[in-house]
Amino acid sequence: MSLPFAASSAAPAISEPTYILDDELNADKLREECGVFGIFNHPDAAALTTLGLHALQHRGQEAAGIVSYDGKQFHSERRLGLVGDHFTRQSVIDRLTGTSAVGHVRYSTQGETLLRNVQPLFADLWGGGFAVAHNGNLTNAVTLRNELVRQGAIFQSTSDTEVILQHVARSSGAHVMDRFIDALQQVEGAYALVALTNKKLIGARDPLGIRPLILGELHGAPILCSETVALDIIGAKFVREIEPGEVVVCTKDGIESLHPFPNAHSRPCVFEFIYFARPDSVIGGKSVYDVRKKMGHELARESHVPSDMVIPVPDSGVPAAIGYGLEAGVPFELGIIRNHYVGRTFIEPSQHIRALGVKLKHNANRALVEGKRIVLVDDSIVRGTTSVKIVKMMYEAGAKEVHMRIASPPITHPDFYGIDTPNKEQLLAANYDVEGMRKYIGVDTLAFISVPGLYRAMGYEYRDEDAPQLTDHCFTGCYPTKLTDLTGSKRSDQLSLLAEIA
Amino acid sequence: MSLPFAASSAAPAISEPTYILDDELNADKLREECGVFGIFNHPDAAALTTLGLHALQHRGQEAAGIVSYDGKQFHSERRLGLVGDHFTRQSVIDRLTGTSAVGHVRYSTQGETLLRNVQPLFADLWGGGFAVAHNGNLTNAVTLRNELVRQGAIFQSTSDTEVILQHVARSSGAHVMDRFIDALQQVEGAYALVALTNKKLIGARDPLGIRPLILGELHGAPILCSETVALDIIGAKFVREIEPGEVVVCTKDGIESLHPFPNAHSRPCVFEFIYFARPDSVIGGKSVYDVRKKMGHELARESHVPSDMVIPVPDSGVPAAIGYGLEAGVPFELGIIRNHYVGRTFIEPSQHIRALGVKLKHNANRALVEGKRIVLVDDSIVRGTTSVKIVKMMYEAGAKEVHMRIASPPITHPDFYGIDTPNKEQLLAANYDVEGMRKYIGVDTLAFISVPGLYRAMGYEYRDEDAPQLTDHCFTGCYPTKLTDLTGSKRSDQLSLLAEIA
Amino acid sequence: MSLPFAASSAAPAISEPTYILDDELNADKLREECGVFGIFNHPDAAALTTLGLHALQHRGQEAAGIVSYDGKQFHSERRLGLVGDHFTRQSVIDRLTGTSAVGHVRYSTQGETLLRNVQPLFADLWGGGFAVAHNGNLTNAVTLRNELVRQGAIFQSTSDTEVILQHVARSSGAHVMDRFIDALQQVEGAYALVALTNKKLIGARDPLGIRPLILGELHGAPILCSETVALDIIGAKFVREIEPGEVVVCTKDGIESLHPFPNAHSRPCVFEFIYFARPDSVIGGKSVYDVRKKMGHELARESHVPSDMVIPVPDSGVPAAIGYGLEAGVPFELGIIRNHYVGRTFIEPSQHIRALGVKLKHNANRALVEGKRIVLVDDSIVRGTTSVKIVKMMYEAGAKEVHMRIASPPITHPDFYGIDTPNKEQLLAANYDVEGMRKYIGVDTLAFISVPGLYRAMGYEYRDEDAPQLTDHCFTGCYPTKLTDLTGSKRSDQLSLLAEIA
Amino acid sequence: MSLPFAASSAAPAISEPTYILDDELNADKLREECGVFGIFNHPDAAALTTLGLHALQHRGQEAAGIVSYDGKQFHSERRLGLVGDHFTRQSVIDRLTGTSAVGHVRYSTQGETLLRNVQPLFADLWGGGFAVAHNGNLTNAVTLRNELVRQGAIFQSTSDTEVILQHVARSSGAHVMDRFIDALQQVEGAYALVALTNKKLIGARDPLGIRPLILGELHGAPILCSETVALDIIGAKFVREIEPGEVVVCTKDGIESLHPFPNAHSRPCVFEFIYFARPDSVIGGKSVYDVRKKMGHELARESHVPSDMVIPVPDSGVPAAIGYGLEAGVPFELGIIRNHYVGRTFIEPSQHIRALGVKLKHNANRALVEGKRIVLVDDSIVRGTTSVKIVKMMYEAGAKEVHMRIASPPITHPDFYGIDTPNKEQLLAANYDVEGMRKYIGVDTLAFISVPGLYRAMGYEYRDEDAPQLTDHCFTGCYPTKLTDLTGSKRSDQLSLLAEIA
Repeated sequence: MSLPFAASSAAPAISEPTYILDDELNADKLREECGVFGIFNHPDAAALTTLGLHALQHRGQEAAGIVSYDGKQFHSERRLGLVGDHFTRQSVIDRLTGTSAVGHVRYSTQGETLLRNVQPLFADLWGGGFAVAHNGNLTNAVTLRNELVRQGAIFQSTSDTEVILQHVARSSGAHVMDRFIDALQQVEGAYALVALTNKKLIGARDPLGIRPLILGELHGAPILCSETVALDIIGAKFVREIEPGEVVVCTKDGIESLHPFPNAHSRPCVFEFIYFARPDSVIGGKSVYDVRKKMGHELARESHVPSDMVIPVPDSGVPAAIGYGLEAGVPFELGIIRNHYVGRTFIEPSQHIRALGVKLKHNANRALVEGKRIVLVDDSIVRGTTSVKIVKMMYEAGAKEVHMRIASPPITHPDFYGIDTPNKEQLLAANYDVEGMRKYIGVDTLAFISVPGLYRAMGYEYRDEDAPQLTDHCFTGCYPTKLTDLTGSKRSDQLSLLAEIA
Repeated sequence: MSLPFAASSAAPAISEPTYILDDELNADKLREECGVFGIFNHPDAAALTTLGLHALQHRGQEAAGIVSYDGKQFHSERRLGLVGDHFTRQSVIDRLTGTSAVGHVRYSTQGETLLRNVQPLFADLWGGGFAVAHNGNLTNAVTLRNELVRQGAIFQSTSDTEVILQHVARSSGAHVMDRFIDALQQVEGAYALVALTNKKLIGARDPLGIRPLILGELHGAPILCSETVALDIIGAKFVREIEPGEVVVCTKDGIESLHPFPNAHSRPCVFEFIYFARPDSVIGGKSVYDVRKKMGHELARESHVPSDMVIPVPDSGVPAAIGYGLEAGVPFELGIIRNHYVGRTFIEPSQHIRALGVKLKHNANRALVEGKRIVLVDDSIVRGTTSVKIVKMMYEAGAKEVHMRIASPPITHPDFYGIDTPNKEQLLAANYDVEGMRKYIGVDTLAFISVPGLYRAMGYEYRDEDAPQLTDHCFTGCYPTKLTDLTGSKRSDQLSLLAEIA
Repeated sequence: MSLPFAASSAAPAISEPTYILDDELNADKLREECGVFGIFNHPDAAALTTLGLHALQHRGQEAAGIVSYDGKQFHSERRLGLVGDHFTRQSVIDRLTGTSAVGHVRYSTQGETLLRNVQPLFADLWGGGFAVAHNGNLTNAVTLRNELVRQGAIFQSTSDTEVILQHVARSSGAHVMDRFIDALQQVEGAYALVALTNKKLIGARDPLGIRPLILGELHGAPILCSETVALDIIGAKFVREIEPGEVVVCTKDGIESLHPFPNAHSRPCVFEFIYFARPDSVIGGKSVYDVRKKMGHELARESHVPSDMVIPVPDSGVPAAIGYGLEAGVPFELGIIRNHYVGRTFIEPSQHIRALGVKLKHNANRALVEGKRIVLVDDSIVRGTTSVKIVKMMYEAGAKEVHMRIASPPITHPDFYGIDTPNKEQLLAANYDVEGMRKYIGVDTLAFISVPGLYRAMGYEYRDEDAPQLTDHCFTGCYPTKLTDLTGSKRSDQLSLLAEIA
Repeated sequence: MSLPFAASSAAPAISEPTYILDDELNADKLREECGVFGIFNHPDAAALTTLGLHALQHRGQEAAGIVSYDGKQFHSERRLGLVGDHFTRQSVIDRLTGTSAVGHVRYSTQGETLLRNVQPLFADLWGGGFAVAHNGNLTNAVTLRNELVRQGAIFQSTSDTEVILQHVARSSGAHVMDRFIDALQQVEGAYALVALTNKKLIGARDPLGIRPLILGELHGAPILCSETVALDIIGAKFVREIEPGEVVVCTKDGIESLHPFPNAHSRPCVFEFIYFARPDSVIGGKSVYDVRKKMGHELARESHVPSDMVIPVPDSGVPAAIGYGLEAGVPFELGIIRNHYVGRTFIEPSQHIRALGVKLKHNANRALVEGKRIVLVDDSIVRGTTSVKIVKMMYEAGAKEVHMRIASPPITHPDFYGIDTPNKEQLLAANYDVEGMRKYIGVDTLAFISVPGLYRAMGYEYRDEDAPQLTDHCFTGCYPTKLTDLTGSKRSDQLSLLAEIA
């Protein structure tokens, strides 16, 4: 994440195209921070990392970076834009020589982006180079950073991840693993980390396992990455999930597992299942596609109404809509058609084009929906802005009734662990009850899956209220860790505010 | 189309990015030549044309162009790339002043592209400027061009469309409509044309109505375009189809309809329904989505086998798969997951990346298909190259049986009317029977819809063998017009071969 | 040149950098239209043409183009910008295969430029390809163009040169040389042409020899080009000047010389010596550098005043200042220092920067000029705008007296033969007498070389008033040819006005 | 400078054009490191800094940067390329808000450049932001850096300048000036620094005053910059030179002068006069143009031979050639003509073009030099490679005799204070005596100014051998400071080698 005091950063040095590859309907989603990938001891380390990051692209579209090590030198390429924009050129891959590499994809913020914040971050430490890539967010980064700056540390980014790097640099530990674990013990929050030194590929997952991290293997080379799809794309084998609180060290002598934290029960983030992860990923032994279909089944059981067809809001609503249709015995139909051609599109839209909104990317299948009662299935509602438009589009196409069904509970609380949530004022469910939301969206009926329904779809009988099995604070307000930066006294105003470019 | 003798043209002047926005699975499809759009007497002519072309982008992704007229001057903007890449910038729209405009999208050829071939073509004629945009292909363009060059005409493009323009320029007709109809009477083949003069917007459709052209209306302004989706995006009303052989002239005094050709029965191209048109378009009164679902029903009736699920080859196979599933009583499932992030991707892929082929864009949903018997539904097979890869991917993901069902008959003959078909040597169905194709693709069973089944899905009881209701030569070898260039003596070798850039 | 009715053309399709490589002091100069180069039967035809055009870059900085022929195909590369920007990349040269080539550089107009106007122009004629590049300007091009359009010709550019091409296309001559000479006999004005067919390299110079064209030779391969410096850069030998009215045809059988026009006396443009040609060129047997020094000698003889030093306005005033200093016995000094670093500079200057004007590129050498009486020598005054600034700069640097001496007579008449002259309202000498100009420029004294002095510096005893030896109408109003377009009835308003992009 | 262990850095992140704006004849010159500029309390701070840097562009063409402070926030823009390429766009200036700014230009190295090394460097220190720009080079930077890294410092660049920044960050001084002076007392070598805090503009010059730094003033706003030309361009007043060892602090309360170092005698670098500074600058009260002319006079006195003309090697040889001509009574002539058009030129030259070498940018004025005895005057010889080519060009143009005269003594020793000198193996004068050099260059006679002649041209009666008045080690081997990095034990091999991009 970007630390709050850097919020006013200026435009990038060399103006980069603004990609709007997400379709309009996905504009009102929560955003994942990042995806990570690392591989050790494989002759095609950089090319495989490129492919792994491409498979994880849904976790972050703002920027991508890879650091490789060739036995003598580290090589770094970091770019704004998609993996496919830059990293698939032979010339780039050729510069990333070596048999080990770590990489990162980062999500697209509203404003401008700083190249210096693109990960992996790298530093020349006394013991040698150290690169680190981070999925998640630290909840005491500002506090730690202020203390480090007071001690004379110069930060090269506004990323929370750099406090880990600075702590590694300053640790008095004898070996790099001592220093790295020293650093981890300073931080709180959510993290799935991959790090690269001149001898090791390191992985680490926070004590609650909020963000995913898995171990795979290709021709004997160990791989660490965020999701199984990054293994699939290169034909690698899934080995196991990294455990919450585990630190894994890959060297040429094999893989070692450290457990520097006291035992805690696992508490993965449920949003990976609801929206972030790809449907073809398997997390914690569960097929994401299958969980989403089950959410559809639960939804239909909880709130079905008589209707002629069930229509997904493309593309994230599809699995739940299939499940819903099967459960309700209503045909699944494509009532909204996407325009697949986007390019670098509509970056300076005229007033006229802006007014057309959702139609640029989607069109109602009028011949299908005219005169029909439809159930629209979506995965979540954040601000509700897109739901308003899509419901309006369906009525304009002649739908007789529109019933909206949402495969997650109302989002009432912001996240601090690597999901970009709007302010409470912008969260629809933090400001309206379901009937208020129904009116706002302008739909015949509106229903959300219940929290118990969500836990059932995830395979639990019920939510353990004393020790919830999932990180679910967005729906419940129940945060799994301390929120030091939020509650502590901040000194960030003492730091000068560089509106830097690069 | 590009005339054959210009096939060796060199690289574009200013190197343009090569977009590969189509997904890998669509790489083995037939390609439409173009889409056209025109609007008369609306204050936002260029912006509306941009939006209309964006909605027609699936008909051509190579290049786009718009010519507007502002009462004094014609303005032209023609670019390689997608509509959304260039035409949505305010600066571009601002240059296209005026209340009438015509536009064109063009499909992406293999090799380099010539900016000078991008339409609308324009010429300063004695009577004033004349812009024309063409969807379709002429079958006597080379013959006509040779004769014109012999008479001293200088061509500015290698496009077949320019022979129309040169004939308009040289016609002895007193008025522009006389000259235009003179020109149409020289040409044979398929065309849906929109043309713009300083007083008129003109539309014309070939005598058989091979390519579609419709009339719409927005706030009283007439619109001519290829598909209804171009009306939907701007909230315009559908008025009627232009009839085969009809020439429509929009002036400030209203719309006039001319019928310069002897009556012929209509014979629209069936491929618009199979693949080209968007599913949310309505052509000849038929919903494309609905026709495709019906093809799925027919397929299931003709060739169903016991199976656990039906899986569409994304995205074009979806409607037929839904129809198939309903008819066969087998659940519809997403067994192949797309990676939506493409950017300018993989333009210089390393060997390693190329070898991964289809996986860059798609991944099998392993948790779903493992151990299952699946029916894969696709709209067509051209070369078969992609089918091989996708079937292999499904088996590798653990599918127990894979049954491929194709919602069009085997393609045995090339097209000459605006569809880019490979040589007969590359057309799988021109070289193998169904069993041969099954072996080539490596699938348990393979079946195509029959020609009668196709006609039934289109709403006909049977194919009228004496006067087929559809242009269907790709499946039947029955071409609807003369093929002069193909059979005549060509003099194209006498023309010098400019490998031009711009 | 661009025909007048195309003056309002819009921005180029793909936005090109605006180069302002000329220094500010040269902003108030007349501009040459073009330079041409052609070579026949040399294995490095395109590379040598590139170098020749680079040496002729001072004749045109707007755009450059090369057409080559490889025995089978013509290849064309035309670009906006400098030769060195595009044509020195191996990839471009590699596309220009073949052993013969013609090339062109074009000068930078104020407004936007059309790629379609960049030369060489090319057409596929019945007899084969034909490329032509033109230095000069036709004075009946509009008249001829209107007639051709009436006959059905479609023009691909707004260049006057295209009327030659269209006439070649339509000529009834049996062979290409007959057709080419037919075409030349239609046109009036100034031209030095190089043309390329599949068998011939052709050169032609107008009957008065207004624009220069020379014949050179490298390893037996004939070369046609505008100035000797284009031979020097590639180590080629100067053979002779092409005679006024001569047409030269190079084939593999040798060089043939045709004289299709009645004898006329030669009348070269004196501005080549005053400003256009490079000082190291030799034209008509005269060293340009030497002529310019002699202009300085004449100036000193005609109008010297007591002073401490003579200072050239860089860079074009240097040879005349050296001559002046030698004649007057006053030391030559660098009183104005250039900043050589320009890049793509100051294209969107802030108000503050604009106000600094001339200082961005030049600075007075204050320590040198403070308290001194200086003679400033420049080659010409057009609008006088720069002279005002530079004189002000010298006074601000402490000069006690500033005496301006101009090495050409006052410019009172516009040119129509390929020199871009401002309207009469903007020509300083068309609106003021010398004393008026002196006051406008704000200088102690101002003097121009006399017309007789100019002829003496050129080596003539006197100007032959009945048959002037030089094209000198800018100073005398004595135009050497008819000015049909200027005086005839124009029909250009009947042509539509395309504001095209490419 | 770049520290030695970063020499193998990879290509820049976003490929930047390689400008070759220096003419070929200047390819064999020594290179200055940098130029600096700072202004305090002026509403147009960034625009004026841009102009100042443009005037100092000859001191560094690789990259430029500006940091401004607007009372709340620092803003930074750093770019590869020329000032005029980026900083004159309104959009860039608009981002650099505030009334104080510091800027830097950096010279063009051979290989790729790192954006992260572009100055001003900036850090968020505990007391607030700190930006610093440096002309010169530290001779103990590697030693200091190694120690800092051992203590846990993370460097963001490979620049020697960053050791100053890191020392400021870690100093225990109470106020920023204490910390800055602490830092200066750690470093040795040459420096002219400008630094910016949220309250101060600071200037500092090393104890020997090796690199220049002057104080100017515009409308009451103090300015610090490398040369007087940066004042001229904005119409600012010269106030005084910063003294060797002086630290100047500009605040809103005025200008304070600190002298933290023991007294040392001044010893400015003589190369500023020979080649680096612009001729219109005044350094140490001496006109650079005048000193260069005097070098020409000394040269003529020491080594004139009978000849017909004196010809400068453009452009740096011109003042010395004028002086030489006046002293020797031989006419000054332009025997070598530059081609001013360069653009982004010849970045991928074909073999043929490379072979032409010097001719791309220069041409002998054959008509002038043919059959003549010429004296060629240049400012220095480094490797001699260009001298060989230019002498050859003059003979090929027909010169009867060529006598080369060099306005500086033979360069026998490398520099370590901010001048980029080749290895001793590449320094011609370190390997040959004058007769050997004459043969290598292939010239009739060769002579250099003597060291005493050089001191006379600089206005000294003789060189004080015990305490030389000038930094002149390149000619004498007499280095003015310790060279710790060169002689000490380096630990740089312990640092990892990041081949970074940005």
